[in-house]
This record gives sequence, structure tokens and C-alpha cells, in this order.
Amino acid sequence: MSSSRLPSVRALSPELDGWGFFLCTRKDLRQGRSGESIIALSLQDRTGTLNARMVGDPAVRYRDEFDIGDFVKATGRTDLFNGRMQLTVDHIRRVNPDQDRTQGFREADCTLSAPRPADEMWGELEELVQHVRDPFVRELLQRIMSEHGEKLRVWPAALTVHHAYRGGFLEHILAVARSALTLGAAYGANQDLLTAGALLHDIGKLEELQYDRATSYTRDGNLVGHVTLGAIMVRGVMTAIPDFPDVLRAQIEHLIVSHHGHKEFGAPVEPKTIEAMILSTADDLDARINQVRQALAEEGEGEFTAYHSRLGRVLWRG
Amino acid sequence: MSSSRLPSVRALSPELDGWGFFLCTRKDLRQGRSGESIIALSLQDRTGTLNARMVGDPAVRYRDEFDIGDFVKATGRTDLFNGRMQLTVDHIRRVNPDQDRTQGFREADCTLSAPRPADEMWGELEELVQHVRDPFVRELLQRIMSEHGEKLRVWPAALTVHHAYRGGFLEHILAVARSALTLGAAYGANQDLLTAGALLHDIGKLEELQYDRATSYTRDGNLVGHVTLGAIMVRGVMTAIPDFPDVLRAQIEHLIVSHHGHKEFGAPVEPKTIEAMILSTADDLDARINQVRQALAEEGEGEFTAYHSRLGRVLWRG
Amino acid sequence: MSSSRLPSVRALSPELDGWGFFLCTRKDLRQGRSGESIIALSLQDRTGTLNARMVGDPAVRYRDEFDIGDFVKATGRTDLFNGRMQLTVDHIRRVNPDQDRTQGFREADCTLSAPRPADEMWGELEELVQHVRDPFVRELLQRIMSEHGEKLRVWPAALTVHHAYRGGFLEHILAVARSALTLGAAYGANQDLLTAGALLHDIGKLEELQYDRATSYTRDGNLVGHVTLGAIMVRGVMTAIPDFPDVLRAQIEHLIVSHHGHKEFGAPVEPKTIEAMILSTADDLDARINQVRQALAEEGEGEFTAYHSRLGRVLWRG
Amino acid sequence: MSSSRLPSVRALSPELDGWGFFLCTRKDLRQGRSGESIIALSLQDRTGTLNARMVGDPAVRYRDEFDIGDFVKATGRTDLFNGRMQLTVDHIRRVNPDQDRTQGFREADCTLSAPRPADEMWGELEELVQHVRDPFVRELLQRIMSEHGEKLRVWPAALTVHHAYRGGFLEHILAVARSALTLGAAYGANQDLLTAGALLHDIGKLEELQYDRATSYTRDGNLVGHVTLGAIMVRGVMTAIPDFPDVLRAQIEHLIVSHHGHKEFGAPVEPKTIEAMILSTADDLDARINQVRQALAEEGEGEFTAYHSRLGRVLWRG
Amino acid sequence: MSSSRLPSVRALSPELDGWGFFLCTRKDLRQGRSGESIIALSLQDRTGTLNARMVGDPAVRYRDEFDIGDFVKATGRTDLFNGRMQLTVDHIRRVNPDQDRTQGFREADCTLSAPRPADEMWGELEELVQHVRDPFVRELLQRIMSEHGEKLRVWPAALTVHHAYRGGFLEHILAVARSALTLGAAYGANQDLLTAGALLHDIGKLEELQYDRATSYTRDGNLVGHVTLGAIMVRGVMTAIPDFPDVLRAQIEHLIVSHHGHKEFGAPVEPKTIEAMILSTADDLDARINQVRQALAEEGEGEFTAYHSRLGRVLWRG
Amino acid sequence: MSSSRLPSVRALSPELDGWGFFLCTRKDLRQGRSGESIIALSLQDRTGTLNARMVGDPAVRYRDEFDIGDFVKATGRTDLFNGRMQLTVDHIRRVNPDQDRTQGFREADCTLSAPRPADEMWGELEELVQHVRDPFVRELLQRIMSEHGEKLRVWPAALTVHHAYRGGFLEHILAVARSALTLGAAYGANQDLLTAGALLHDIGKLEELQYDRATSYTRDGNLVGHVTLGAIMVRGVMTAIPDFPDVLRAQIEHLIVSHHGHKEFGAPVEPKTIEAMILSTADDLDARINQVRQALAEEGEGEFTAYHSRLGRVLWRG
Repeated sequence: MSSSRLPSVRALSPELDGWGFFLCTRKDLRQGRSGESIIALSLQDRTGTLNARMVGDPAVRYRDEFDIGDFVKATGRTDLFNGRMQLTVDHIRRVNPDQDRTQGFREADCTLSAPRPADEMWGELEELVQHVRDPFVRELLQRIMSEHGEKLRVWPAALTVHHAYRGGFLEHILAVARSALTLGAAYGANQDLLTAGALLHDIGKLEELQYDRATSYTRDGNLVGHVTLGAIMVRGVMTAIPDFPDVLRAQIEHLIVSHHGHKEFGAPVEPKTIEAMILSTADDLDARINQVRQALAEEGEGEFTAYHSRLGRVLWRG
Repeated sequence: MSSSRLPSVRALSPELDGWGFFLCTRKDLRQGRSGESIIALSLQDRTGTLNARMVGDPAVRYRDEFDIGDFVKATGRTDLFNGRMQLTVDHIRRVNPDQDRTQGFREADCTLSAPRPADEMWGELEELVQHVRDPFVRELLQRIMSEHGEKLRVWPAALTVHHAYRGGFLEHILAVARSALTLGAAYGANQDLLTAGALLHDIGKLEELQYDRATSYTRDGNLVGHVTLGAIMVRGVMTAIPDFPDVLRAQIEHLIVSHHGHKEFGAPVEPKTIEAMILSTADDLDARINQVRQALAEEGEGEFTAYHSRLGRVLWRG
Repeated sequence: MSSSRLPSVRALSPELDGWGFFLCTRKDLRQGRSGESIIALSLQDRTGTLNARMVGDPAVRYRDEFDIGDFVKATGRTDLFNGRMQLTVDHIRRVNPDQDRTQGFREADCTLSAPRPADEMWGELEELVQHVRDPFVRELLQRIMSEHGEKLRVWPAALTVHHAYRGGFLEHILAVARSALTLGAAYGANQDLLTAGALLHDIGKLEELQYDRATSYTRDGNLVGHVTLGAIMVRGVMTAIPDFPDVLRAQIEHLIVSHHGHKEFGAPVEPKTIEAMILSTADDLDARINQVRQALAEEGEGEFTAYHSRLGRVLWRG
Repeated sequence: MSSSRLPSVRALSPELDGWGFFLCTRKDLRQGRSGESIIALSLQDRTGTLNARMVGDPAVRYRDEFDIGDFVKATGRTDLFNGRMQLTVDHIRRVNPDQDRTQGFREADCTLSAPRPADEMWGELEELVQHVRDPFVRELLQRIMSEHGEKLRVWPAALTVHHAYRGGFLEHILAVARSALTLGAAYGANQDLLTAGALLHDIGKLEELQYDRATSYTRDGNLVGHVTLGAIMVRGVMTAIPDFPDVLRAQIEHLIVSHHGHKEFGAPVEPKTIEAMILSTADDLDARINQVRQALAEEGEGEFTAYHSRLGRVLWRG
Repeated sequence: MSSSRLPSVRALSPELDGWGFFLCTRKDLRQGRSGESIIALSLQDRTGTLNARMVGDPAVRYRDEFDIGDFVKATGRTDLFNGRMQLTVDHIRRVNPDQDRTQGFREADCTLSAPRPADEMWGELEELVQHVRDPFVRELLQRIMSEHGEKLRVWPAALTVHHAYRGGFLEHILAVARSALTLGAAYGANQDLLTAGALLHDIGKLEELQYDRATSYTRDGNLVGHVTLGAIMVRGVMTAIPDFPDVLRAQIEHLIVSHHGHKEFGAPVEPKTIEAMILSTADDLDARINQVRQALAEEGEGEFTAYHSRLGRVLWRG
Repeated sequence: MSSSRLPSVRALSPELDGWGFFLCTRKDLRQGRSGESIIALSLQDRTGTLNARMVGDPAVRYRDEFDIGDFVKATGRTDLFNGRMQLTVDHIRRVNPDQDRTQGFREADCTLSAPRPADEMWGELEELVQHVRDPFVRELLQRIMSEHGEKLRVWPAALTVHHAYRGGFLEHILAVARSALTLGAAYGANQDLLTAGALLHDIGKLEELQYDRATSYTRDGNLVGHVTLGAIMVRGVMTAIPDFPDVLRAQIEHLIVSHHGHKEFGAPVEPKTIEAMILSTADDLDARINQVRQALAEEGEGEFTAYHSRLGRVLWRG
């Protein structure tokens, strides 16, 4: 058995033997064309997600040794399968935290995460809120942060499309805030409203998604959706703040319900203020650039990426 | 001065002299091409809306004798102007309720209204709610009816498109309930949910619109929209009912947020249950048929109506 | 060899050995990655369609023992393959009707069919027609039923989308009639026309599709389409009825040509009467609900189905 | 009173006094802002349509002297009104054919018509049909020409969009035939089918439109539409020809039902043969070029026309 | 005759008598319903555009005293006509520059212009270009500025939609540069490319539009369009710079051809780099905000503007 | 080892043993489900493209004996794999031109090509240009032909969609010229412009694509696109011709930028002249018919092809 530790997922090259610690996020049992047992796996570390497979004997032997959501130690050999990196697994078992920590196992290393540490992002968020001048808006944002702090620090921004990893939510709203505030400064928009809009526009995703290492839609996410869930959450908090001005409430709710920009993208109301136009523009741009960066980060040759079906085009690597 | 009373608006024919009681819903001051004063009016009674105009001397004399939103007594002569009925007004004044009641003035006769009396429709609504078996749904609907009874009895269903008259809201939700329940029976859908959906899908219009003889959008109506306003209102009531089941809450909110059927029509979430499909179908059909009936009710000749720009076609008179 | 009979397709569970009678509706010869022979089959009974495969030796041995469209007796073992039920076949042969009937073979048990018996549905159709008051409409419908009775009893309503099974046509038009008549009663529409529209709107499918155990498009189906084929068929019958009123003829043809509701869905003319609006609404709703039911009937876990690509959403299992 | 005859409509210039013979195709009674009587007219001759108006005294005096659909003799003065030519009418009366013929009245001169004489176009059509090699196709076309010859010679191709004048139908189908046959020769398509498609694709317009000096939609036109009406007409004739080959029938019907090219333009079936693609291309091109020519023919200055709302662009005059 | 000077157009109130200097940008001769002469005018000063009219005698007397494009001195009285400010002109004549300058006439005061002085904006542009680090990009921008400086200082950005006034082009590209550079800083984009994109994306408008007090489309503008015209202009300059890197050339051309963001908005190629996405986002946002500001600047009452047909919504005044 | 030569790709039938000369245009290394080596190949000859595969031992042995872009000699056996022809390769090696020519190897026989010889098409092109009457247009076309003759003779018209083979460019522009000129004759369009448009509309593809046996997009192709590249190329040549009339230049550029017909298909400007409408129509029709012919040429049974996903329909084989 190989004894060297594999590099991180993003740094893998073909034909390496070794082992690593991962989070198992997919485990599909299949039968090969000739009847042999096959297990198809997704193994994740901080830097990316790796396809893996067990064929024949190992698939039979280690089948019940781990489950989806487990941290695992897997041993095997990398190769390119139809142009994408793959690990053929010889041996796999659940992590034994106490024992494996001596070999360097750390949970945080096995979870796909935003590039910046949560604490640093949280600090930036606190600073943004401290700059809010309107006391009602500041109070609102502080209550939201205090009430949902735990989720806000770890949540992904989406299931698959963009910022779909631990801390992605925080990374996304900070980026939107940054863009919206500089655009807002240029156009003389209300900066307090833009800060509120950046922080609150996707707040319903805390109820739309369920995140516990893996991400899935909740019942409310499927049936009610984050736009309405967010509006309800924020209305609740604003109602609890004494004397919250009604016109301010309406403006903030407008930012939430209109942030998808167009009806066909799921906005029940379209932007009717300069702040709402800036917010939906900043939100859309950040989501698209995050997708572009992910596409550019994938291994590949040539000046252009493969066709990106969601964006409907190839992208230039430069 | 003519002394005979004019027939109701829908029954007018050209070249009649006489007077009537109306609600004034439009009063535009203009200057004619040759410099003369002109006032363009809309005068409403229970059966329809009449264009009227004052030219020259009367426009100067009676200009300050009345305002939009006043009940007025107007005297003049009817004619066809570019194919539509019009009243040329010689004399107009505010109604003096005490005195004019002796001449037959009644407020209700001067307001465009649903064909059925409010009490009759309200009774039908109560009966529907009594047939709801689920105690939580019934409690929810009873609270809504008790809290918003006053508005529910008089509200229009829209500003201009369909059921845009006193009592139109109630007329619309009863028609939707009727259709949804018969379709639901055919497809084995949950009838309690359909009753709830019919009553609640447009409930946000009580906050979206302002109605006091004339109808207009509120600030919340423009900035937040009735879909989200309705979801917030209903969430508030459900939260107040002890032990309201969470799955039932989600289903009811789904009916509200998905009732426009498609994203491009302003539904942030599309129907994912048979009940939601039936509700949005019944809602859409009732709105379209109400438009068709209005178009067919307008004076006109020939087997087909003029081109109906909202529906994008002519309609058959049969 | 196993001797027990397998349960019906919808009731199968994994890892059962046994035999069954089926209709073979697909038989694709393939080569495995390692060069072995593989035959991929679709086997149908009254309750559903089952994927099956023969690998290696049995594929060579029994390859010429049966064809598409044959009733077969197949023996093998069930398992889950990539999440869907599959039968790995050891032995297969054509049914020998005389001999196999003693073992319980019945043709009707091997054909995917509407849930209700054809006779019951036919009786309901006859009753609907007896309730038609207009003698010309009744005569028209009776002639259609008498002329096309044989096909009407067995035809599917579509190739794949909805009601794609024996008797699906009849099931669909009865459901459309039921919905259209209750909606029509609520809106004071002409019930005779709605009955005619329900029965005749898809009548061109008798020429568009070819059904003989399996379903396919005819040349006329591809080149002319069921909307126009239906209009031509019905014109032919109406012309043959003495004194058939011309205005009635035009109304019925309007129902047929407009029943897809919108041009982009293939309606050369859009609904211009309340009856046509009700008919296209009832038709569309029934087709969508049938698709939902099929999706909900498929094996699966969790509150929501997998993404339904034709409807463009997941569906709630409740 | 002026005694000189005005030039033809297309050749008019402003500030001419004189008289002319016209077909009156519109007569709207209006009231001016100051209460004076106004009659707005459309007066047509062979070369175009002229707006005309009668104001005050003449409007009262001659109001009952003529009707829509009458040939009239009108006297007045031309000027430019908001950039378009207009005739202010002093005197107008019905034509007295016997007497006015001495002054040069001829019905044909007062009807907006295709530029080429009907006989010449009819001769070209006969020649096209003589070149058809397939005896069944030739027989079909000859029967259609013999049965509908009278209408075919005078019918317009549309109510307003393109070729909306006497003989426009014939002009359009000949142009489509010319284009389709040359394209068909280049691509080796079946020329007989293309001739049939050119002649028959719009044949349903003989029933869709009513033309008797003025053009309007018939009941069948509105409710059934020319695509389906045409398919029914042609099926009737083909059925009457002994031994008409079924595959040929389907091909011809395909050309008719698919000639609008795309579902959203009202084609229930889209082109599935090279002949159908060529036909719909030739039809669309001819309709667009006819619109361009009409726009270019209108009086105007500058290199570009005004914005053409149907085509959605300005056009180059060159 | 009134002797007081009227305030600037944006500051006008109804019922003022007085005179002013204006640029005449529209002069339509019409006939009133009663036959009287009417001239409809548009009169422009630095702050806005005013509708004006001359009726009857003055229309006859002063008709030939001025033309479109002339600076004029007009005397009259303001009033509200259908809710918009209007000047009824008693007397009007061409400006006599020498003499009228003593009364305060200055050409610049009579031309609708960007709010900031051209020199100030030009200085900002020069500074932007000095910050470009890449010598080729800087050289390119300097050549463009030197070659087209005269037009760049005065050009409008569009005919009607946004920044449609003197200096609007410069105002627009500076705003786009500002937004694009701050967004680019946040996303680590190439700032030199963004500066180039902001300056060059609309450069083809210098050939698309003709501006000499009034704005119109050129032949090339209509036939070739500013996207392609700009690409050709910039290619020409880049080719003239020795050793201009080919990859840089392609990137800059990509920014120009993709700046409309989507094919349906006229971009022959869609953004394939982060810089191109940022540029098209900044361009679109600036154009929309300029439209919003114009709508908000128009006189009006209530919290919301009238329906804005290009944006398809009402806007909040706040 | 088999010693007979295989027929050409289009003429292959299953279960043939033999060898052939091909161009290798794809070579993907894969691992089978059981771990065996697999190489998936595309092998091209003049008549078509053939899927091939090497499994196990041969895949290991001959893996490094050839590359993409090589002419190869391959030996093996044909069969049908999932309904498409496939060659299972036993032996493969690079062609040795000198030696293999004795066995009949010719490069031209191994390259997918237009059906007509390049020389014949080139002659037709020269003749077209000689018929151009306008000396400037003729000069322009001659310069383009002389400057780009080498590429023009061999270029494909697209990467995959239509005319995607050696000589396809020339085949396409000749077909467009043929159609455009006959349509132009019918509508009295400027034939010189149509000839220019046919030759030049896709000229940017000489820079958009890279073709050297295989076809790919260039950087300029992806970033700038052939519409703009073509306009720049042609502007360059026109500028070099002394006294080239400006209005002619604008017309020719209009033909290039508008040839995709609609904005959503990538035309930055839509056709504003009859010539531009004819050109875009002829271009679109030729591209569609080429796709239809390719689909009809594929092996298959039945009257209709399989569903063609780009055209969105099945096609009739007749």
C-alpha cells in the first residue's frame, strides 16, 4: 500500500499513488456492464471536489465501511477519465478523529470553502454595519446578525450555481455590498439602503437551504422560495423594532423582492428605485463573475474554456 | 333646462337631453385648439363609466363647483363622439345629499359595482368556510374574514384589468373558489387547501390597492406587490394560531406565491402541487372571462368585437 | 430455474427471482465495452414499463426467439441499476397463447392501460352524448362514435407526454369533458359545444398516431398534424348531416383549431369564445395533472420528486 | 367651383384645387373641439388611398349624399396635414354612372389594384399549371382554378399587411411561385409540388376574407383561419379526383399547414421537407418586400423612411 | 408687449408673461380643426425642452421669420396643457447675435447640455488616460482623443434614450469609466482594459450620429451601426501604432463588439471576459439610471411617476 | 489479417473485415468499466466520418503510433453500435506516403470535402465576378479573390453546423449567390450588390476559423466574431481602392453586418434594404437545406429521420 499523502484536490495530477482525508458527498452503487460491483464517489476537500470509483473486489469489501456525509480516509491512484481527474480507490474507511488527527486530519481541510476565513469576513460585515448612519437600518442589521450569526458564517450561497461552498453566502453578500456601495457613491444613492440590501437580499436562503456539510433545498425553499421567505423574515424583525418608519420598511422590502431584476428571473416586482437597480446589478454581476472564475479554475488547455452551458458561451482564459 | 332623468350609463342612447347623479372619477382641464376652456370628465354610475366634456362658458362657470371623488348632478346632452357615447355637460354641481335624496340620489347607484349584492356574496363566502374540514384552515379563514371583513366586502380586484369595480374582489374569489373546487373534486385534490387558496391568493390586494370610490396603487402595492404582501399577512395570522402545522403553513404559502402560474407573470415560485396548478388555472380563467364579458358588454355592431389589445385578438359576439 | 411468478411491474422490489408475461416494446442489440453481447429490452405489463437486459450467453442464445411487439415469457432476477428497477433476463421466449393461458397469460394483462376499464369509460361517453340537447351536435357526436368506436376505445392520447397508454385517449377526453362542463356551468357557457369540444378536440389523433400495442406517428401525423386532421374529419361528418347549421359548424371547428390555446403551442387560431377558452384550459390542465401523477407514481424517496424536465421544476410528494 | 380634374392619388401635390372620382372606403362622423361637424373620409383610386375631411357647412349639407362603398365625385383642395396629403372637400356626391362616364368615370380607376392587369396575371398562372408534369397535381390545380376563377382574379392577399388591394392575391401567388421555382431548381426540389404550394398555400383566404370593393374578415376567417380552411378546401378537391395518391395528398397538405414557417407565426406544423422550407421562405420574403415597397412608395424626404412599426426599423430609400 | 425675461425652462411656472432666447428644434405647420393656422414648436435652453405653439394670426405673420436650428427670441405666456408646460407664442424672430448679445444672449445658454462643463469633463478624461499603465493602450486612447477631440467634447450619447444632449457622450463615458474601474478593482480585472472599454465602447457614435445643435442618424449610423463603426475606427488606429500587440487588439475589439451584453440587444458577440462583463454591466446601469433621473426630473405629483414605457414600470419619487 | 480494402465511409455495411486510409480527427484515451484501455477515434474520408475504437491489447500496443491530424492506415471490423456504424480497430499506423501511395493512398481521398471539385467552383466564382457591371464592386471582389484565393478554395463554412468540410465555404457562397441573384432578378434588386453580398457576407470566417485538415475557432473568432471581422476586412480593401463611392461602401457594409437577419441571431443591424433582405433569406435557406441534406444522408430506416435537435423536428425522407 502506498504511504505518501496526496496533494490537495485542486493540485492533483494523474498517475499519483497515495492517500488523503476527504468528505464523502456522493456514494452511488452501480453494476458494471459485465456484472461487477461499482461504487461511484464524490470526495471533497477544501479546494475542490474529486470523482472517485471503486470497482470489483474493493467495492464489495468496503461498501459498508462509510456513508455519505462521513469524513473518510481513502487510498488509491489518480488518472484522467474522459478528460477529468479521477481517483480509483483501493481502500477506504471512516475517519477516526482521535487517531487520525495525529496524521494531520482536520475537519476544516475536508470541506469545500470560500477562500477567505470566516472570521475575517465576519469582521468586514460588522464594519459595514457600523458605517450605517440610519439608526433603524443599523438596528435591523445588527438584530439579523445576532439572530442568524451562526448560519451566516457557514452558509453557502446556492446549491450548485455560484458560491456553492461553506462561507459562500458571506463571501457573496460582502462582494455585493462592496460593488453596490461604490456604484451607489457614484450615483448619489442612499448608502444605508444599499448596505441593507446587500446583507438582506438573500437572507431567505437561510431557510431555503439546509446545510450540514452537504447542501439541499428545504420544503420551504421549494414551496415558498428565498425571495418571499426573506421578506417575511425581515418584516418580522422590523415589526419588532419600535417606531420603525413605514417608508423605510417599504424600501427595504422592495430591495428584497426586486433583487432578481426581472420577472422572468423570479422577481415578483421589478426595481423602481435607483438603489434597487444598483443592488440587482451588483448581485447579478457577482454571481456571473463567480461562475466565470470557477470555470477558469478548472483544469484545461487552450486559450478558451469548454462551452459553459449555463452562461451559453466559451470563456477566455487569456 | 331639461327636466327628465337620464337612464343608467349602460342604457344610454345618443341625442338624449336630461340629468343624472354620478360619481366624478376624472376631471382634466384642457385648452381647445382655439384657446377655449375644456374640461374632460369621467362620470360613473352603478352600470358603467361615461365620458363627458364641458366646453367654453360652462367650463369656466362650473370649474370650481366640484372635484374628483365628488358625487355630482350633471345636466346635458348625449351624442356619439368617435364611436363612443359622450355627455356634453351644460350644468354640473356637487350633490347635496339631504336635498338630492328626495330626487332619488343614492350613493350606491353612483358607484360601479359587481352585479351581485355584497351581502349575498358574503353569505356564500361564509358558507364556503363552514365547509372546510381542517380546523386550522377554517380558523385561519375565519380570522382573515373577521379582521378584513369591511374591505373584503367592497374591494375591487384590480385597478383596470378585470373585476375593477366595487365588490369585484369578492366576486372574483368566489368564482375562483367555485371553479377550483369542482376541478379539485374531479382530480381528488385537497378541497380545504383549494378553498384557502381561492380566498387568500389575492389577499395582498387589500394592501396593494387603495379604494375609496376611486382605486389607486399604494406605496406598498408598487414597491412590494400583492403576492409578497399577501404571504406576509397570512404568515402573521398563521403564526398567531396555536399549533398551526408547519407543513400546512408551507402549502398555503405555496398557493399564494405561485398563483400567477409562471415566473414571467410575476410568480416567484411556480406551482409544484396539483392544488397550486388548479388554483392558478382557475384564477387565470376567471380573469380572462371577466375581460371577455366586459368587451362583449360594450356597445358595438357585427359578429366580432374590435381588436382587444390586452388579449391580442377580436372576440366573437355570437 | 426459478419457478415463482413475479408481481406486477409497479409492485416489483429488488432481488426477486421469477418469471412473468410481458409485451416487448424495445429490443436493442449492443456490444459491451469488453465485446460481450448485450440486449436491452423494455417489457410492459398493465401497470408499467420495466427495463431489462440480457448479457453474454443468454443474449446470444435467445436473440432470435422473439421480436418487438411480441408477448414474451421472461425469467430472471430484479435489481436496482442506477436507481431504477431492472430485470436481468436468463431466459426468454415468445408466448404460446394456447399453452400459456393455462399458466395465467392474458393479453390485456401485458398492455399498459388506463386505470378504468374501457367499457365503463365508453358508457360514460355515451351518457355525455345523450345529454346533448342540440340535435345536430348530438347527431355529429353519435356519428363520430359509431364510425370510430373501435379506435376510440383503445387509443392512447399521445406518444410519450401524457395518457400514453391503451385507453388514454378515452380517459383524457372524459376528464376534459368533466372539467369543461363544470366550468361551463359556472360561466353560463354553451354545454353542448363544450361536450362537442371535449370529444372532438383531439379526434385527429386517431389519424396522427398508429397504435397496435406500440404507438408511433403516422405520415399524416408528422406532415399534417392532429389539429388539421381533426378539422378535416369533423368537417366531413358535418357536411354529411343534412342542414347542419353553418354557424354551429364554424363554432365547432373553432374549438378544434384553437384548443392548444396559443400560437406558440401550435394553435393556428387562438380562442375567441368563452367555450374555446374553457376547453383549452381544461385540456391543458388535464395533460399537466396526468404528467404530475405519473411523476409522483415513480418510485422515489423524499418530499420532492427529481427535476421534471418537461414541466421545468420538482414536484411535491407531500 | 374648380373645374380641373385632380391627378391620381399617388401623383397629388399640395394646394391643388379640383375634382376626382373615388371609392369611399371610410366615413366617420365627428364633432370638432368647438362643436362643429366634421366628416373624416378615405377616398381611394387605382393608385392609392387619400385622407379627406369635410368641416362645418359642407359636412352638414352632404352628409347623407353618399355612403361607404359608394363611388363618389369629390371637389376640394389638397394640403399637407401633419406631413400627409389631405383633401379638404367642399362638395361630394354619389357617382351617376351613366352621366359621369362621359366625364371619364371608370370603376376600375377608382379601385386600389395590383400594378399588372388581371388577365395578364391569369395567363401567367395558366402557363405555370401547364408546366406541371404530374397529372394529379395538374388536375388538382386546374380544378381549383376553374372552381374559384372569379375570386382568384380579384381577391386581395390580406386585409392590411401586404398586397391589400384588388388582384393582390394573384400577384402574391405568382411572385411566390416564381421565387419558389427558381430556388427549387437550385436545390433539386420537386417543382410540381412547389407550383402547387405557391397556388394553394393561401387558398383559404378566399373563405377567410370577404372582398367587395372593401375587404373584411368572414366569420370562418376569424374562427377557423385560412390555414385550416385551405387544407379543408384542398382535401375536398383531392378526394374528388379518382386515385389521387395518398402520399402526394399528404405532401400538399403539409405545404399548406406549414407555410407560416414557425408555430409562433401560426403554423400548426413546421416545415419537414425541402419543398416546405422553400415555400415558406418565398412566401415570407414576398410579403416583406411588398411591405417595403409600399413604405418606399409613400411620399417623404430624406434617405430613410419613417420608422415602420410592423417591420420594426427604418428603411433605406437609397 | 411683456418686457420681463422668463426663467430657464426647468424653472418655468404657469401663467408667466415674458420673453426668452431659445434654440428651435421642431417647427410643424398644422391646420386646426376649424381651419386656423397652427405652428407647433420645440424650444430648447440649457436646462430643458419646452413645447410651444402659435395659433392663428401670429402663426401666419411670423411663419417665415425663423427655421429649425435657428436661435430665436420668443415672447409669450406659459400655461399647463394636458399636464405639461407650454408657451403660447405671440411674437418670435431669429436672434441677431450682435444686437441680442447686449440683452444677454449666449449660444451655450440655449443648448440642452450635460450638467458639468465640457472642460471639466475633458480634464477628467485626460487624467483617466494618464493613469493607464500599458503604453499601447495609453497611446491608443491619446490618439483617439487627439483625433476626435472636437466631437468628443460636444457629442450627445444618443438620439433620444439617454444622455441625449450636448456633452452627453462625455458624461456617459466618464460615468461608465468610474463604475467599471471600481468594479474592476473589486474583482481584480485589468484596469487599463476597462479604461479603454469605457472610452471606446460607443466611439462609433461619432459616426452614427450627426450633431449640429440637433441630433440625427447618419447613413452609416442606420446602415452599419455604431458597434461595427467603432470596431473599424479603433482597428484603424491600432494598426497605425507600431507593434501593437495582437492579443491586446483582440481584447479591445471584444470590449467594443460585446458591450451591449446580449445578442438580442445588438451585441454580435457576448462577453467572454470578466472585463467585458463589467463593461457591459456598467454601460447598461448608467443608461438606465440616466433615464430614471430624467423621469424623476419631470414635473409631477405623487410618490410615483407616470408609467415609463421604455422601462416598463412606474418609478418611485421617494 | 484481412487483406481486402474497405469501401468508402458512406458505403460501409456492418460485419466487414478490411483496411482503409483515413484522417484521424479525434483520439480519446479512456478506461473501460473493468479497467481495460480503450481508445475512441474519429476516422474521416472524403465521404464521411466514422467512429472507431480500440479495446484492450491493441489500445496499449498502437497508442503512440499516431496522433490527431495524421493520415492513418487502420485495419479492423465494422459493426453497428447503438445504431451507428463503428470500426473495431485491430491495427493502426501512420501513413507512409511514399510507400502507401502504391496501395492507392491519396490525401484528398481522406478529407471530408464538398461534393464538387474546388477548381470547378472557383471557375464559377470567377464568372460571377466577371458579370458584375459596377467597376468598383468588381474591383473589390477581384482584390478579395486574389488576396484570399488560397483560403477561399479550401475553407469550410462552419465548425459543425452546415457545410462543415473542405470547400464548404465556396460551396455555400456560390449557392447563396445563385439564390440571391434569381430572387434579385424577380424583385428588381441591384444584382451587383447581391453578388458582393453573397461573396463577402461570411468573409470574416477566413479569420474566425482555423482550418488545417481539422477546424477550430481562432482567438479573433471567439472574441470578435466573423460579422465584425468581415466588415473590417472589406473596409480595408475598399479604402485602398481609389474613389470608392461612399454610398456603395455603406451598402456593402450593411449587407455584411445585417446578414444574420435578426438581432437575436447576431446581426447588430437588421436588413433595411431589399438586397439585404434577399441576402439574409438566401443565406438562411442554404444553411438550413444543407443541414436537412446531411440529416437525410445519414443511414436510417423509415419515412422520417430521428428528431433533429438543432432544427427542432423530424424530417421527411419521402
